Amino acid sequence: MPETEFATTLVTLDLVGIFVFAVTGALVAVRKNLDIFAALVLAGVTGLGGGFIRDVLIDATPPAALTDWRYLLAPVAAGLLTFAFHPAIGRLERLITVLDAVGLSLFCVTGALKAVEYGLGPAPAALMGMVTAIGGGMLRDVLAGSVPVIFEGALYATPALCGAVVAVLLDRTDLPIVVVSAAGFTTCLVWRLLALVRGWSAPLPRGPANV
Amino acid sequence: MPETEFATTLVTLDLVGIFVFAVTGALVAVRKNLDIFAALVLAGVTGLGGGFIRDVLIDATPPAALTDWRYLLAPVAAGLLTFAFHPAIGRLERLITVLDAVGLSLFCVTGALKAVEYGLGPAPAALMGMVTAIGGGMLRDVLAGSVPVIFEGALYATPALCGAVVAVLLDRTDLPIVVVSAAGFTTCLVWRLLALVRGWSAPLPRGPANV
Amino acid sequence: MPETEFATTLVTLDLVGIFVFAVTGALVAVRKNLDIFAALVLAGVTGLGGGFIRDVLIDATPPAALTDWRYLLAPVAAGLLTFAFHPAIGRLERLITVLDAVGLSLFCVTGALKAVEYGLGPAPAALMGMVTAIGGGMLRDVLAGSVPVIFEGALYATPALCGAVVAVLLDRTDLPIVVVSAAGFTTCLVWRLLALVRGWSAPLPRGPANV
Repeated sequence: MPETEFATTLVTLDLVGIFVFAVTGALVAVRKNLDIFAALVLAGVTGLGGGFIRDVLIDATPPAALTDWRYLLAPVAAGLLTFAFHPAIGRLERLITVLDAVGLSLFCVTGALKAVEYGLGPAPAALMGMVTAIGGGMLRDVLAGSVPVIFEGALYATPALCGAVVAVLLDRTDLPIVVVSAAGFTTCLVWRLLALVRGWSAPLPRGPANV
Repeated sequence: MPETEFATTLVTLDLVGIFVFAVTGALVAVRKNLDIFAALVLAGVTGLGGGFIRDVLIDATPPAALTDWRYLLAPVAAGLLTFAFHPAIGRLERLITVLDAVGLSLFCVTGALKAVEYGLGPAPAALMGMVTAIGGGMLRDVLAGSVPVIFEGALYATPALCGAVVAVLLDRTDLPIVVVSAAGFTTCLVWRLLALVRGWSAPLPRGPANV
Repeated sequence: MPETEFATTLVTLDLVGIFVFAVTGALVAVRKNLDIFAALVLAGVTGLGGGFIRDVLIDATPPAALTDWRYLLAPVAAGLLTFAFHPAIGRLERLITVLDAVGLSLFCVTGALKAVEYGLGPAPAALMGMVTAIGGGMLRDVLAGSVPVIFEGALYATPALCGAVVAVLLDRTDLPIVVVSAAGFTTCLVWRLLALVRGWSAPLPRGPANV
């Protein structure tokens, strides 16, 4: 049945997204030489934070993470695995960035489609997709005292918003949910990774002389 | 009809408040030389953050910003306009402060009256007014890594609380909503601006010698 | 009646927890030489923040603090008393830590039991206990620009989680609520204080050489 397929696809993508975001949170803890409990808290906040913000805003409380044990298991497993098997410190920075891009791409799709499911219009649903995608990383960076990744001048929030828009628009067609999700995911991921690799930068404010 | 007038007045004040707060958020991004997407995110968080916190706490979810496109348009317009026409960097500090005071004064009124509308008693409603007013700026400062404006020793949260109290109390009379709002707005704005201009300061903790 | 006893016990513990957490918030403001209004805001955020996060997530909105005036009075009284009678600056650091441990131990119990009352399963309820306990201090540290206490490498979140687990498990027996609460409270407090006194530390990430 399509409904079951829809739910299963969303939950699977959500769990993978939670896992990779949680890994980025735990890696930040490892890089800062924090202990294992701090790593688990940071993994949980990063993995679940964006979804919590979305669920609270669209009135889907209590969030799935509080009623479905798999949503709790994902960040715990991610935190423990990261702590046990983290790669050489020198290579963490790049790994965090790539996993973060994957989480971003997964969450912009699941966030947007869940918002549609809860009755939001296309524009707010796409916005919720972006909020879900950038929320966890924002909380991670604020807690860890880093500059929020969205402010680093790279293109970050925009690919998430576009991935969400693609998912919302295609969701109105007859395409299967897997295709819809894949299209939104790919849009966001390719854009984000290209921006990273090519060093794209967005327009900066003009200097005082131009006023 | 009074009901329509009430709703229209609140929405109008809310939109103006979102716009000016969003401008302060975008100006912080400009001052930090962040790119246009960071400016839009910071504009959105600053403009909508306080209202989101309020709506989530008083159970008015999904917040108006997710069902009414004007609430989304306001911060986007504010962000783009700020980015395009920002004044000389040297003068931004003062401009942010004044716009912030206007947003503070608008939101303490709309926050308090919306809380009353949702059945809260006078004291919590006034508190919600203050939270709405200081919430967006608090999120902005935390994200941007600045010292939260409420901690700078100037009088900030108190005028917002008093403006909210004035609005809540006058709302129980027969006065038209425009007058109620104007009284609360003026109370907060005059107090805040006087505190800024005159360099008022609140009692500081006594030193160790006084213990 | 057990139901009344249950409610009374929870509310009492909640109020004491709010008070001591609010004192830690106000002490941070005093230590940073912030003015009295900043101290009150920081007291309110620290005392009420954890419970707000919990109530929003378990859909218990509006939170008790917005419908019961005692919940508002507690942080205000804590802020004013702290401001008036704060002890010598040199001794604040330790006092904040001990009060924080007491608040942590109170909130992990009340947070978990309230979540059970709202229908959450044992594991998510224990998690909510931990979130309630660490939420206020986390917001305090983020706003005050300190390193979140949970990241300092001491054992912080774990005793809160264990206290919550003890409370949730004992709550399923016939034990009176006072005993259940005391057991959870003691578990968390003893663990946390021992960790502080003995300088316990949790496993740290292995160095790059071990990869």
